[in-house]
Amino acid sequence: MSAAPESSAAPSPTGSVYAPTERTVPTRSKERAAYDRSLVHAILDEAYVCHLGFVRDGTPVVLPTLYGRVGERLYVHGSTGSRPLRMAGQHDPGLPVCLTVTHVDGLVLARSAFHHSINYRSVVVHGVAHQVTDPEEKRRALDALVDHVVPGRTADSRPANAKELAATAVLALDLAEVSAKVRTGGPNDEPEDLDLPHWAGVVPLTRGHGPLVPADDLAEGIEVPAYLREL
Amino acid sequence: MSAAPESSAAPSPTGSVYAPTERTVPTRSKERAAYDRSLVHAILDEAYVCHLGFVRDGTPVVLPTLYGRVGERLYVHGSTGSRPLRMAGQHDPGLPVCLTVTHVDGLVLARSAFHHSINYRSVVVHGVAHQVTDPEEKRRALDALVDHVVPGRTADSRPANAKELAATAVLALDLAEVSAKVRTGGPNDEPEDLDLPHWAGVVPLTRGHGPLVPADDLAEGIEVPAYLREL
Repeated sequence: MSAAPESSAAPSPTGSVYAPTERTVPTRSKERAAYDRSLVHAILDEAYVCHLGFVRDGTPVVLPTLYGRVGERLYVHGSTGSRPLRMAGQHDPGLPVCLTVTHVDGLVLARSAFHHSINYRSVVVHGVAHQVTDPEEKRRALDALVDHVVPGRTADSRPANAKELAATAVLALDLAEVSAKVRTGGPNDEPEDLDLPHWAGVVPLTRGHGPLVPADDLAEGIEVPAYLREL
Repeated sequence: MSAAPESSAAPSPTGSVYAPTERTVPTRSKERAAYDRSLVHAILDEAYVCHLGFVRDGTPVVLPTLYGRVGERLYVHGSTGSRPLRMAGQHDPGLPVCLTVTHVDGLVLARSAFHHSINYRSVVVHGVAHQVTDPEEKRRALDALVDHVVPGRTADSRPANAKELAATAVLALDLAEVSAKVRTGGPNDEPEDLDLPHWAGVVPLTRGHGPLVPADDLAEGIEVPAYLREL
């Protein structure tokens, strides 16, 4: 595996938006596309899993996986034996990937079947993923992955030891060719359909947390930490 | 575009499980893989969007999209001008895709950073998608897409007219090469970590609906239908 030279330090933002490319300009619903860094970061930071796409033997593979963000770089991790991690290690100069994150915010019910839709926010990142070989960057990436699940958790867990670090491969993907897509608001029915006798509007979808479930073998006297009580 | 001959009728199940293939047997966490049709159907029916992967100019593309299921066949739709739909029309004998659906059910906090995880249920479908050309199947597919968003909604909306049907392309993907992956339960910490002073357990994630938002232009006197009140 040969990591690209730029893989050891996260790139600096060069503006408030990502430059659109042929791949990141949609062929339709262009008005829903956005390139603002702050919007992209917010969508990425709110989700728990991404869907990582890569090509294996000429056919596509899409796998859900955890991820973390450090500035303008995303990290995914896996066993050193897992397919995309192995493939990235075998590829020079890296593994072409597409990493997509989606929030479904609401169900849009129109009078016409044709105009049914969903409200959503998504981010699509195109790029080439590289295995992280620098030990310091690898540790920062794994911290980011844990803190992405629950902010503040890295500081309240036992850090990875040498054996665990060796068993874990990390891929880095720079945020360079990136777009967001957002749909909000109500249904867009045809004018001639507005008087049809069908309810129309939006069913908002919500997300939340249920009561914490302590591990069966949790030692006595360990209280729920503040960062969990605040969730 | 040339649809495969078998594309006009959904295949019949040939057993209670999908036969594993080289692509659907994971390289790790094999104990989480499952092939039961009923489990796969349940995971598919509960989600609103899938992530559809395909290969364009040799690189992967992963897009979120609505879908519907009729028996052992999935449908996705889009404008006849959208990329995957256009590509499937240009491909003979179809467009190789990977369609993935994921539910994130909980955050798994272990004493060690290494053993942090999520509880999830996912389905990965590999196959070749074909454009649906049979008008009757196309209409059934679009009904399934709308009823997937809200069961019973097709019967309470204005059906697509000829112009709308012509503007919509539908892809069919048979459930043949399919696997589910499920993680449940608490953290799997190392025995020597059990007495560390870190809270460990699961943060269950919940989904729900907020109050309905009627369309701004909803005609007076239209009540919320029963199938929405029951959500």
